[in-house]
Amino acid sequence: MNENMIYLDNASTTRPSEAAVQAMLKAAQCFGNPSSLHGLGLEAEKLVEESRKAIADKLGVESKNILFTSGGTEANNTAIFGVANARHKIGKKLVTSTIEHPSVLEAFRHLESEGFTVEYIDADRDGLLDLDMLYDFLDEETTLVSIMHVNNETGVIQPMEKIREIITEKAPYAHFHTDCVQSFGKIEVNPKRLGADMVTVSSHKIHGFKGTGALYVSDARMLRPILFGGEQQGELRPGTENVAGILAFAAAAREAISDNSKIISLRSKMRERLLRIPDTIINGSDAHNSGSVLNVSFLGIKAEILLHALEAKGVYVSTGSACSSHRPQPSHVLTAMGLDKKAIEGAIRISFDYTTTEEEVMRAAEIIEEEVASVRRYM
Amino acid sequence: MNENMIYLDNASTTRPSEAAVQAMLKAAQCFGNPSSLHGLGLEAEKLVEESRKAIADKLGVESKNILFTSGGTEANNTAIFGVANARHKIGKKLVTSTIEHPSVLEAFRHLESEGFTVEYIDADRDGLLDLDMLYDFLDEETTLVSIMHVNNETGVIQPMEKIREIITEKAPYAHFHTDCVQSFGKIEVNPKRLGADMVTVSSHKIHGFKGTGALYVSDARMLRPILFGGEQQGELRPGTENVAGILAFAAAAREAISDNSKIISLRSKMRERLLRIPDTIINGSDAHNSGSVLNVSFLGIKAEILLHALEAKGVYVSTGSACSSHRPQPSHVLTAMGLDKKAIEGAIRISFDYTTTEEEVMRAAEIIEEEVASVRRYM
Repeated sequence: MNENMIYLDNASTTRPSEAAVQAMLKAAQCFGNPSSLHGLGLEAEKLVEESRKAIADKLGVESKNILFTSGGTEANNTAIFGVANARHKIGKKLVTSTIEHPSVLEAFRHLESEGFTVEYIDADRDGLLDLDMLYDFLDEETTLVSIMHVNNETGVIQPMEKIREIITEKAPYAHFHTDCVQSFGKIEVNPKRLGADMVTVSSHKIHGFKGTGALYVSDARMLRPILFGGEQQGELRPGTENVAGILAFAAAAREAISDNSKIISLRSKMRERLLRIPDTIINGSDAHNSGSVLNVSFLGIKAEILLHALEAKGVYVSTGSACSSHRPQPSHVLTAMGLDKKAIEGAIRISFDYTTTEEEVMRAAEIIEEEVASVRRYM
Repeated sequence: MNENMIYLDNASTTRPSEAAVQAMLKAAQCFGNPSSLHGLGLEAEKLVEESRKAIADKLGVESKNILFTSGGTEANNTAIFGVANARHKIGKKLVTSTIEHPSVLEAFRHLESEGFTVEYIDADRDGLLDLDMLYDFLDEETTLVSIMHVNNETGVIQPMEKIREIITEKAPYAHFHTDCVQSFGKIEVNPKRLGADMVTVSSHKIHGFKGTGALYVSDARMLRPILFGGEQQGELRPGTENVAGILAFAAAAREAISDNSKIISLRSKMRERLLRIPDTIINGSDAHNSGSVLNVSFLGIKAEILLHALEAKGVYVSTGSACSSHRPQPSHVLTAMGLDKKAIEGAIRISFDYTTTEEEVMRAAEIIEEEVASVRRYM
């Protein structure tokens, strides 16, 4: 790994912080099983519960409403299958959007195969969802609405309060889940202010380790578990806790910053600089952006070629989202936003972090300009 | 934590080894998302695949048959729900035993609530399963048999080859899953020699970290996934990989010892020494024991009181299994073995590891003798 690299792929994953690493090492020492009755077990349990409180505090909720999971995917699956299966007698109508993360979309697709009806709300060119569609879809048989807070490919923020209002008006029996993996630690995520009954967060996007996430759930009774076993976490999520991962998540959350003014400024500088490059399009709303992501299309190039050209110069970005980039397909998010094939093929995702410096951004912009020109010469 | 402690609760969890900690630290440096297309991602992916090979090598199987999970609970659930749901059209009959881990038993209980028929094989006084019952239960509608290799409360080894023979004879459409969480790293676990189609293993029982496990599956087509999302692990287990946990698991597995002669000798010495104490019963077969666990009842005492008395002297043992000890109930394993109330109430589990020394065992035995006498005086 090159220490001079400019890492602008923070929406894929982040480097574990020193505090997260120290927390891991502490867990290696305090190695008891949190379920053991003796002191080593109680010590581990205490550390897990302190960590639960740290995540709860960051969200402005109570510890008892936090369920640790193996990551965002399990948290999203727990919320979606949990509510759909627990409440199928009330109704089998579910609502989500076309621009969700695969761990939301694939869960809903599986529920469709089991007889549920799922409606997918469209996004406009700015990446904002069509709330009239939401209004029309919702009814008294709707039990679940799952809409992400900040999109992982564009950084666009959905208007959560408005969505909550519409749900309250139209779907009195629906619970509202929101995937906040890309917003937690970037902008404020407060389930009560968002009006959300369930919120998914993840550790490795905020300088913790991969393999730990959490689900906030306002009332555990709305969920049927997806894993069955021991008595951990009120039997809602059994299995020996990932103590090291949980401690590291808490350490990272304590340091996480909800003030996005710095990343908004970085994004804005990168945006201005890149728009000087001919045939460049910025994808997704600037006004409604967390500042964490700049999605930009350079028409006439293939993004994967640009990605590798940039990497050779020490600049790390991504095409689409990491979780589906191994089997390159046109981005489902940009497709849903109505971009044409050329714009989708030429789109890269540049993602910022509070550790990113302005100098890195300006240097990266320069390299991107050079490499776009170079790639274009050869295509 | 007292450095002079004698830790004899290795069946609950083990201390992460130095190699596991170093692997964790390496993952903190090589922090890319394994699904990212650039070099940081590929580097992380390579480390994950090397780790998969290390686990596969230890089991004598191929990498492609190893699925990483968040632990033994998820691996057991994946095997059980995976096969039951994928093959429900062939039959809805499932077989397990009364002495399984809660992550097996509760999964089957949930399947019963969904219309499956589950037969539970009884254990005898030695902790060995009634294979005639197995023979009688199995038929052409049976799709899954799940029987643990080594019991977590007694260390008793089930005769896997015989079980496989019976399955092959009576239930041609059944897959055979075995929970090897307590045998992996203690005795040889080779799915082919065991005749198992699926094998569950866990990291934190062999000096890795909590929160990582794996499922060996001979053919992925027998499973329907329980988590839905990205394209990781052939879509059978989506979600960003717990890279640090996986690397640590591989590091621990590389050091794990399958020769149990040392722990058998330690168990035997402890057994002989403790049998000098009046009104003492050893629970479970000595002849068919992995050597990792000595389950012993001191009649007339309450195990929890003895556990705390021992802890005060630096000796750590457990009552029953850790995963259910927080809500003390009579051990379902000892109950299934037909022990009476007094023997169950007075039972502690002493569990050994290859790092345990003979000196520790003899010192612990002395302390146990003193504390049993002392507790008995006050009861």
